[in-house]
Amino acid sequence: MLRTDLAPSASRFLEAAEQFKVGFEPNALSAAPQRHIVVVACMDARLDLFRLLGLEIGDAHILRNAGGRVTDDVIRSLLLSSHALGTREVVVIHHTGCGLLGATNDGLRARVHDATGHRADHIDFLPIEDVKESVRQDVDAVLRCELLPHDMVAWGCVYDVEDGSLTRVV
Amino acid sequence: MLRTDLAPSASRFLEAAEQFKVGFEPNALSAAPQRHIVVVACMDARLDLFRLLGLEIGDAHILRNAGGRVTDDVIRSLLLSSHALGTREVVVIHHTGCGLLGATNDGLRARVHDATGHRADHIDFLPIEDVKESVRQDVDAVLRCELLPHDMVAWGCVYDVEDGSLTRVV
Repeated sequence: MLRTDLAPSASRFLEAAEQFKVGFEPNALSAAPQRHIVVVACMDARLDLFRLLGLEIGDAHILRNAGGRVTDDVIRSLLLSSHALGTREVVVIHHTGCGLLGATNDGLRARVHDATGHRADHIDFLPIEDVKESVRQDVDAVLRCELLPHDMVAWGCVYDVEDGSLTRVV
Repeated sequence: MLRTDLAPSASRFLEAAEQFKVGFEPNALSAAPQRHIVVVACMDARLDLFRLLGLEIGDAHILRNAGGRVTDDVIRSLLLSSHALGTREVVVIHHTGCGLLGATNDGLRARVHDATGHRADHIDFLPIEDVKESVRQDVDAVLRCELLPHDMVAWGCVYDVEDGSLTRVV
């Protein structure tokens, strides 16, 4: 049985999706992105990448996690994206005002322990000290990964949540 | 020096971002999502979650990877999202026509090896056999994680890329 009472946003999202379906136009788009590009960005709620980058449905793979960090899971996704679905360009987007900016592993682990009684000492939250530097590091991690296609290119930007600007840094 | 020649989409994206900035309205949104919800979904290029779910900027954290699988990196992001930024609801969205649907680790590892000469045997691509079942598994992985807040709720859907419909399965 579906516990709708325990999913506050379920009816709202499903109603929105009903409206979306009404305007949906059948297409011949495949799983391979038309622009052969992957965006790696933060999960932050203030980032609508389709609007920011002028993306159309079918254009690009989108990977998002806390910080927009290039983790093992992002590498897994990039391998599938490139080798199986033809992408050859990666753009990494971090942003000002990120929840990871200035955070520490100690501080975040203490929050988890205080709230749950369980230890999260094995988790590296990948905190960010300098958002331009973290973009450079993560673009570098893509370029250094020898499992990705040799002709994969990567670049990176910082998005400013205060003024809506996007600035390329690498 | 920025190697624009090696980033085919850079000028296009940066021009779109310039336009976005023109229409950008200053706001008082913080890093904490207004609706206290996190969406976990596939990277697939045919999924515009803002349009599909009727999201506004500031509403929800968005996590995306290959398949929309609940990996260690998703757990890292969910811990930050919930304990530091107040979310208490997770919705997992997988979809028909996914690149991981029917794929195998052996097949994907062979692709990587054939293209690069390097072995990816240590990588589990998390292939999907049945898309409703993978949603159930991943919602379960969220609910079972004892590091997340005890009042965290989770539900899951399948998006149909052919007709634009979203169906709740758990």
